[in-house]
Amino acid sequence: MPSPDPQPAFVLIRPQMGENIGAAARGMWNFGLDRMRIVDPRDGWPNQKAVAMASGAGRLLDEAQLFDDTPEAIADCDYVYATTARPRGLTKLVLTPEAAMQDARRRISEGQKVAVMFGPERSGMENVDIARANAIISVPVNPAFPSLNLAQCVLLTGYEWQRETIPTPPERVDAVEDWAENIEIEKLADHYEGRLADAGFFYPEAKAENMKMNLRNLWSRMPLTRADVQMLHGIMRQMVRWKERG
Amino acid sequence: MPSPDPQPAFVLIRPQMGENIGAAARGMWNFGLDRMRIVDPRDGWPNQKAVAMASGAGRLLDEAQLFDDTPEAIADCDYVYATTARPRGLTKLVLTPEAAMQDARRRISEGQKVAVMFGPERSGMENVDIARANAIISVPVNPAFPSLNLAQCVLLTGYEWQRETIPTPPERVDAVEDWAENIEIEKLADHYEGRLADAGFFYPEAKAENMKMNLRNLWSRMPLTRADVQMLHGIMRQMVRWKERG
Repeated sequence: MPSPDPQPAFVLIRPQMGENIGAAARGMWNFGLDRMRIVDPRDGWPNQKAVAMASGAGRLLDEAQLFDDTPEAIADCDYVYATTARPRGLTKLVLTPEAAMQDARRRISEGQKVAVMFGPERSGMENVDIARANAIISVPVNPAFPSLNLAQCVLLTGYEWQRETIPTPPERVDAVEDWAENIEIEKLADHYEGRLADAGFFYPEAKAENMKMNLRNLWSRMPLTRADVQMLHGIMRQMVRWKERG
Repeated sequence: MPSPDPQPAFVLIRPQMGENIGAAARGMWNFGLDRMRIVDPRDGWPNQKAVAMASGAGRLLDEAQLFDDTPEAIADCDYVYATTARPRGLTKLVLTPEAAMQDARRRISEGQKVAVMFGPERSGMENVDIARANAIISVPVNPAFPSLNLAQCVLLTGYEWQRETIPTPPERVDAVEDWAENIEIEKLADHYEGRLADAGFFYPEAKAENMKMNLRNLWSRMPLTRADVQMLHGIMRQMVRWKERG
């Protein structure tokens, strides 16, 4: 079953190698996209090499819609993007993947049907198919090395769709975020200050106050969890025990 | 010749297949990145399969720096990211590629040396290497299909680096922050681990490895200056001296 949320269809036009179709399926499903359309694949359909490469994304191949030509594949769409690295002397809106997926998201939220077309591996999209698109998506690659393969282009476009759709919080912290409270930091600082004073750390006398302040500042500047604080207490206790064993 | 503009180094840790190293080189150079570091590649170096796959990006392989282990590979870096899909029960800052590359640009504009680590194909990064990182980069993939290969992960991270083309004005940081380099953190971790082992801290035996890893993770997670590191060395040295005085 395709995902219930509306999303762009990705249209592979005359793809050549089954492996690339499989890799494209993986790249789509990595980012939650599962509406694949295929126009006239060179080696026929279904394609066992595509299945082998797709592994966990094989469902996309089973459910892919097959078409004889490009106009048929995009017939039901309101707005179509063509991915192409090279400018082709056609006057047409050119968007970054970022701008294109923002635009696609807006259109889809308004009820439009949207598709993104990807050309064959060797030659890229033909002008006649680019002319059918409403806008061009061009990945801002290094001009000295612009070669992106089909699956990479699918992956980056899918990534941008995902990035626009799911507002991921800019950062989160792994595992249990059981941060130490201030009183715990204070007690940790006291513990170290006390034992280090016993050990003669704050020397010479004239510098002692400053050394103590720097040490306190160190603890409070650190993003310490409760577990960290316990470990730091444990370290100091153990050093004292070791000393006391003589 | 590497590009003159400062940029993050991409560190491939124990990569397995030459093809993937070559594809990673392509993904980097697609977005103008050309500082590759490689830690202990499974099939030795140079690798003809890597060269064949890299095609136009072969220069990155010729100029790649080879290292025996991870600490050596990141020794000169001020800030290091680990790319990993899975949360690992280590408390550490987790960033999207977008937030991470924004952060990297800012750090680099302030003169810091930055690296991004990528794990081996099959297993991904080991916890012991993740613990050496200052932050984690996690690509927001479909939870139902999170598998990204090495070259795809490199491609997406490189894409985000490139996308942040408009350099944000560097934020002003208070005072002169002389941040400790990674090699200094590593030595600090070694110092504590060694003395604490002498002191019998890592007990019981069955938990020792995990305790060591958590302690290492604590150090690398902390925003430590050189002065902080010196103070922490001094604390431990003093505790040992105290013990030795009996």
